[in-house]
Amino acid sequence: MSLLDKKFLKLGAEFAPGQEVRQTANEDENLGEEIPGTPVDFSHGDVDAFEPIPGSLEHFVEGVHLGGKQAYTEYRGSKEIRENVAEKLSVFTGTSINADRNFIITPGTQGALFLAMGSTISRGDKVAIVVPDYFANRKLVEFFDGEIFPIQMDYFNSDKSAGLDLTQLEDAFIAGVKLFLFSNPNNPTGVVYSQDEILGIANLAQEYGATVIVDELYSRQIFDGQSYTHLCAQNIVDPENVITILGPSKTESLSGYRLGVAFGSAKIIERMEKLQAIVSLRAGGYSQAVLKSWFAEPEGWMTDRISQHQAIRDNLISVLNDSGGFKVRTTEAGSYLFPKIVDLGVPINNFVKILRHRAAVIVTPGSEFGPQFTDSFRINFSQDHTSAVSAMNRIVQLAKEYRK
Amino acid sequence: MSLLDKKFLKLGAEFAPGQEVRQTANEDENLGEEIPGTPVDFSHGDVDAFEPIPGSLEHFVEGVHLGGKQAYTEYRGSKEIRENVAEKLSVFTGTSINADRNFIITPGTQGALFLAMGSTISRGDKVAIVVPDYFANRKLVEFFDGEIFPIQMDYFNSDKSAGLDLTQLEDAFIAGVKLFLFSNPNNPTGVVYSQDEILGIANLAQEYGATVIVDELYSRQIFDGQSYTHLCAQNIVDPENVITILGPSKTESLSGYRLGVAFGSAKIIERMEKLQAIVSLRAGGYSQAVLKSWFAEPEGWMTDRISQHQAIRDNLISVLNDSGGFKVRTTEAGSYLFPKIVDLGVPINNFVKILRHRAAVIVTPGSEFGPQFTDSFRINFSQDHTSAVSAMNRIVQLAKEYRK
Repeated sequence: MSLLDKKFLKLGAEFAPGQEVRQTANEDENLGEEIPGTPVDFSHGDVDAFEPIPGSLEHFVEGVHLGGKQAYTEYRGSKEIRENVAEKLSVFTGTSINADRNFIITPGTQGALFLAMGSTISRGDKVAIVVPDYFANRKLVEFFDGEIFPIQMDYFNSDKSAGLDLTQLEDAFIAGVKLFLFSNPNNPTGVVYSQDEILGIANLAQEYGATVIVDELYSRQIFDGQSYTHLCAQNIVDPENVITILGPSKTESLSGYRLGVAFGSAKIIERMEKLQAIVSLRAGGYSQAVLKSWFAEPEGWMTDRISQHQAIRDNLISVLNDSGGFKVRTTEAGSYLFPKIVDLGVPINNFVKILRHRAAVIVTPGSEFGPQFTDSFRINFSQDHTSAVSAMNRIVQLAKEYRK
Repeated sequence: MSLLDKKFLKLGAEFAPGQEVRQTANEDENLGEEIPGTPVDFSHGDVDAFEPIPGSLEHFVEGVHLGGKQAYTEYRGSKEIRENVAEKLSVFTGTSINADRNFIITPGTQGALFLAMGSTISRGDKVAIVVPDYFANRKLVEFFDGEIFPIQMDYFNSDKSAGLDLTQLEDAFIAGVKLFLFSNPNNPTGVVYSQDEILGIANLAQEYGATVIVDELYSRQIFDGQSYTHLCAQNIVDPENVITILGPSKTESLSGYRLGVAFGSAKIIERMEKLQAIVSLRAGGYSQAVLKSWFAEPEGWMTDRISQHQAIRDNLISVLNDSGGFKVRTTEAGSYLFPKIVDLGVPINNFVKILRHRAAVIVTPGSEFGPQFTDSFRINFSQDHTSAVSAMNRIVQLAKEYRK
């Protein structure tokens, strides 16, 4: 097997959210009786249930009418829109972002992650990532030929924190790790890092001269007044060693426009722009104009959205807890739940397949987020409330049937 | 200097088209008197002079109204739209493209190029590219740690062909090259490869088991009834060793939507999709819907567009030839001209800077397309006709002034 064959084997995307349609079901296989109910795709949020920010499309159309100026922006994005968003994000994070030197618009937060990792990982570099965390993090390190140092997050046994193992993180830095990537709130658990944890990470990174990339994709949708700490605002790590990533694809339902941003280190942002020049030139020109609606939502829109999601979360957690067959930590921010099935009697990939065929429910297997999560699954509960609860009841029913 | 520093030094994007705004002019420097005239940015086509395909925005808006289905497509793109476009491209190229296995929608043709190269180059691989050719080709090989084998194209001394040195190409294959990338029509010269050249390339690739990536971005805008040969339709190279790239960003002025496609080898397309999953997930979901207008333009629209461009081309070439100070091969397809300045007395990057400051004209220096093109520059003549001619007259005037 060639080097490239091996590399792409590790990049397997067949269990990634949204790709289920490419899994060829064995037609002859009888998985059991179907349980009737409205199909629910928990692999991503339902932008029909929670629609994009009002006025987004109008901003896009205005962008089209601006013509060439909006179609051909600098690779890092339109100067006017960078200034608009950098100002809003400076307020949100409590920092001061220079739109010209420290800011780039990317094709989604996935684009920002790829560019940031490609700009900081050299072949053989040691890179620390959290387990569990967003599945692409591991794949990115592998694609850029880095060496993964997994840092455990004991999310079930930590009450007032995410449960990151800071000792393991320090050991990784001692072993030569120069880059640490993590999402906050954590994907898939929806846990928010405590202030102590953020300060701990920042102090270690600064002590060992490491770069930190923080994926804050879901940091606007925070429940129960939970406090949130932006690492970039702590003034502990050298600002040239920090990149923060955000985007409007999740809470704001703008995924269809493929928009994300990254800000921080001027040197890394400049590299990200050079890389963007050969990856896809720029985030779609007209789409960039849609960022004007971000952080400029109608009054009350975000508050309503958060309380609606909190209600769905509470309902789904009740269903799981009442069943007695699951262990789950309450989502503190974002739209993910990462339940563990007690005494699951079949491999998680099989269970996921059974759910799809018998219950018309799509979930993402835990093994995408770390090899040990063989009895967990992730759902995105940004769905129609009633359909989500009904789908979760079907999951509970099938988990009982396939118990050891 | 670290490995990564060196890599990004080679990725310099400061002279790339569209990035001129980031070049900090030395305010104190007196470059000479300004020549009045309407500013023209020849670094890319002017989508205000040549507007997008009628109905494109309407397709986008329909995509938005389709909602989640269009926002979250498979990574390789919406099945329905792949089927629509694969059918149209099968007719155009004279091949049979399977929309499910052999086709991917990408963020622009730049996205297609990046994914195709990332899916075929492993560290240390020998890769042949043409000189001159699109500047990103060289950068892509360098980013993926390949070794470049430049193949010369003697475009001035070949009448009935592009002038590719097939002997040099065969020597490269003998030396171990397993991948050959070229654009047809050639960027920056606008030359079309003859049928003999395409057959020659195909036979060599098949003999040595090499993969060929053909960038056919400008293959619809062909002048003077010039004949065009699609390599993928020759049935010479193993179809699993061919990828063809196309997109609506140029002739069709849809660059603002960031759309491209690649078709061919099922194995490479599958890898491209896996890579897309970590690069930016997918081409913008709503944008994908715009591909419905591609190859479905109003009757006469494409014919008119081609004849308007041919008229601009003829006018600009007359200006250059009448001046006696340039050598230029007539564009056979696409919107590029790549004139050589006779006896230029200053380095090309300086001349480009002078043009920008004194004549309000932006062109791309020849050195972006190959180290030896130090007295050539590229223009995209998809511009307002009158402004383009006037700008070319200013270029002629300044070339005289800076002659040796």
